[in-house]
Amino acid sequence: MQLKVKFLKLSAGRPVAVLHKKLAVKSSMHVDERVLIRKNSHKIVAVVDIAVGMLKEDEIAVSTEISQQLSLKEGEMVYVEPATSPQSIPLISKKLKCKTLNYQEIKKIMQDIVENALTESEIAYFISAVYRCGMSMKEIEEMVRAIVDTGKKLNLKQKLIADKHSIGGIPGRTTPIVVSICAAAGLTFPKTSSRAITSPSGTADALEVICKVDFTIPEIKKIINKTNACMVWGGSLGLAPADDKIIQVERLMNLDPDAQLLASIMSKKLAVGSKYILIEIPYGKHAKVNKKQALNLEKKFKLLAKRFNVKLECALIETKEPLSNGIGPALEIKEVISVLKRESSGFMLEERALVLAGKILELTGKAKSKKGLQMAKKILDSGEALNKFKQIILAQKGKLNGLREAKIKKQILSQKSGEVKEINIKSINTLARLLGCPADKFAGIYLHKHLKEKVKKGEKILTLYSESSSELDGAIKFYNQSNPITIK
Amino acid sequence: MQLKVKFLKLSAGRPVAVLHKKLAVKSSMHVDERVLIRKNSHKIVAVVDIAVGMLKEDEIAVSTEISQQLSLKEGEMVYVEPATSPQSIPLISKKLKCKTLNYQEIKKIMQDIVENALTESEIAYFISAVYRCGMSMKEIEEMVRAIVDTGKKLNLKQKLIADKHSIGGIPGRTTPIVVSICAAAGLTFPKTSSRAITSPSGTADALEVICKVDFTIPEIKKIINKTNACMVWGGSLGLAPADDKIIQVERLMNLDPDAQLLASIMSKKLAVGSKYILIEIPYGKHAKVNKKQALNLEKKFKLLAKRFNVKLECALIETKEPLSNGIGPALEIKEVISVLKRESSGFMLEERALVLAGKILELTGKAKSKKGLQMAKKILDSGEALNKFKQIILAQKGKLNGLREAKIKKQILSQKSGEVKEINIKSINTLARLLGCPADKFAGIYLHKHLKEKVKKGEKILTLYSESSSELDGAIKFYNQSNPITIK
Repeated sequence: MQLKVKFLKLSAGRPVAVLHKKLAVKSSMHVDERVLIRKNSHKIVAVVDIAVGMLKEDEIAVSTEISQQLSLKEGEMVYVEPATSPQSIPLISKKLKCKTLNYQEIKKIMQDIVENALTESEIAYFISAVYRCGMSMKEIEEMVRAIVDTGKKLNLKQKLIADKHSIGGIPGRTTPIVVSICAAAGLTFPKTSSRAITSPSGTADALEVICKVDFTIPEIKKIINKTNACMVWGGSLGLAPADDKIIQVERLMNLDPDAQLLASIMSKKLAVGSKYILIEIPYGKHAKVNKKQALNLEKKFKLLAKRFNVKLECALIETKEPLSNGIGPALEIKEVISVLKRESSGFMLEERALVLAGKILELTGKAKSKKGLQMAKKILDSGEALNKFKQIILAQKGKLNGLREAKIKKQILSQKSGEVKEINIKSINTLARLLGCPADKFAGIYLHKHLKEKVKKGEKILTLYSESSSELDGAIKFYNQSNPITIK
Repeated sequence: MQLKVKFLKLSAGRPVAVLHKKLAVKSSMHVDERVLIRKNSHKIVAVVDIAVGMLKEDEIAVSTEISQQLSLKEGEMVYVEPATSPQSIPLISKKLKCKTLNYQEIKKIMQDIVENALTESEIAYFISAVYRCGMSMKEIEEMVRAIVDTGKKLNLKQKLIADKHSIGGIPGRTTPIVVSICAAAGLTFPKTSSRAITSPSGTADALEVICKVDFTIPEIKKIINKTNACMVWGGSLGLAPADDKIIQVERLMNLDPDAQLLASIMSKKLAVGSKYILIEIPYGKHAKVNKKQALNLEKKFKLLAKRFNVKLECALIETKEPLSNGIGPALEIKEVISVLKRESSGFMLEERALVLAGKILELTGKAKSKKGLQMAKKILDSGEALNKFKQIILAQKGKLNGLREAKIKKQILSQKSGEVKEINIKSINTLARLLGCPADKFAGIYLHKHLKEKVKKGEKILTLYSESSSELDGAIKFYNQSNPITIK
């Protein structure tokens, strides 16, 4: 059919076409289905939205993705027809039947995801299929390959490229310390991080308090060539765009099938060219995984590393409480700086960062076996790590001062005397988010007491920081209900 | 955060709010997530779209669903925050883990679907869960109840309310003949039908050629009170709105899990108050199900009927070719009329309709055991069925004449002599859709030859009807490739 173009003046991140409800009913089109829009020999596939009132039955309102690609003018006529469904639909169906996919098939799905040819609902079907049916190691390997092959690459010339990843969820930022120590030791460390999804602060959120984290690939290469390392947000780089999109859809349901988690982490590390990879897997009652799951992940990571010919180690560490006293973007980066400056140990932060850095130094051959921790400590104590950190922050257009406190501060005192028996990390995370994290950079929590510490009635156990009194009130209410710190 | 309102002037069938990309990144909001928008004590949950260029960072563009519900003016300030996710999300997660849901849990999911609180991706997760994990008979029963309880009801006063449903896919419309015979016999027959999804014509599409099919519930009651029956489109009545929405999302992947199929059909029949239900299950190589699947469905339908205290029978009939010569909305209704007028038997149409009507007459006690077919034939032969049909069509503001031929007609001649060995129903359906069905009402196919008939070289086997020569060309190309009729 021929329809008259109206401009929607909206760029929705994907091509969206709005049809009149009556026309949609007549031609059996539904929200979230696709139409093929043609002008001369140019064409584009768009997702259908249905409207009444903003357009006539013989009109089609198009988002800027469509008007630009087809060079349309308002009032012009275009040909519109139901689009044949993407080639990956029957492949997703196949996986939903728990059948095995080969490289070409997985690649087709990843490609359609990257090209916006699949709707979020269709991606949800794919994720469900992987969640319910699982994937063989061969399939996971091929998904990693397909994600990398449909994204950009960093293509660094350096040889000793190291990387780390933590199967998150625990507050406290070891990454800036580990990266600074390793880069000071001469390793190349192209670290890309995510922003917080369910936690109070991702590494990117914390670093953003003191420097830029959003760079282009050429800019990142410059930073690395100057400093050996970078600490940037990976979200807009397009290094593993299929994975970025899958994660968006996964979070709706808090799903994170093992196969997808493995593919996601490996593909991001391979896209930046890492050859030496350390995966930190904190486990325990309040962590993302228990010990059995952690061991299972370790096994699979190692199998995968062999297939891609990279050296990989996992650090499985039981973790029962936040790593640092500060929780929240600014409070966490502040503690990182105090560790680098040798002003404090930042509760467990220094110890954990040294363990991880030591393992990477051994993995890359910079340190001899069992000498990594010692070397890491030397680099930290000598101030070399701090200098390296300053260099990187400067290259990322930042500076170390400028940290302020949040507008509102509230002490939480213990109602009784006793010992700290349990800290519910998930409740602490929720508390910090209610205080405004990660959007309010200076909001968060300072933990005055840790596991097994003695507490007297009336003693400070937490300080809450917030930018708004209504958020503080909500947080206090939640604290009283959830009681995240058990004292007995 | 506080944002300034802009009007999107778009009603998208669900509340949509557009945020600026930078703001979205900062506050970790993503396409397809939800925000809670507040003005004074009024609030609404909206799905997030992200845009650049149509609004400023401190603005929010809202669809008319939002502006109306909150009585907003452009330029006003509203409070916006990430919405807590719907209560049904963890329940969908639970089903994805293959656990059993109870009535309250299923009801919550259906309610959230009806209230637009779930996105299509989240509904896709639910459908995947049901597809992969299945549902117990108890769960299916409770899903039926939940779908009915979250929709409208017809609430007819009549007692002998009959209904039929066919597990579709086979061209040829028995429904108008069956309804006319049964209503002439004094049964109440509130027939709601769907439009074609993958077939060339649904019952609603075919009837729409000669009368209206889109009515409100009070209008439908008037039609039934006048004529004992109706034959309307069920899509906009809100009788089982959760199911309508689920079907929309299922079709993306051509999924139709058994549990959902059972719940869908039963809920629609119960919503109109049917007490006597006939389910036609055509099976065979080119039908939707094979014999084993048909028997399994029959068993489950009967169990379900017992739980809802309705009388139900299944008619399992092996079906190897279209029921009528005509395929396409107008061509099919034309043949229905010729059967009712006793001008032809419409290939198998008369025979199949009589069998089905006979079974319903027996089920309701209108005919004695094994006397149904005879009674149905008598009503058809006497002209009572035709009169009843005319009455219904008139009550639905239609008339029997006014059927024209499509603009273009093309004969397909046999390339060889032999016997018709096979008719691929799915390919015939695709062929009719390529000719323009169901949007072009007069497009379609006329089958001159049927299974086991002798054909001479050069004899007509098909006539193709279309409104456009380009569609005809495409259809002929497909015919030559797929060769849907095997002559040997």
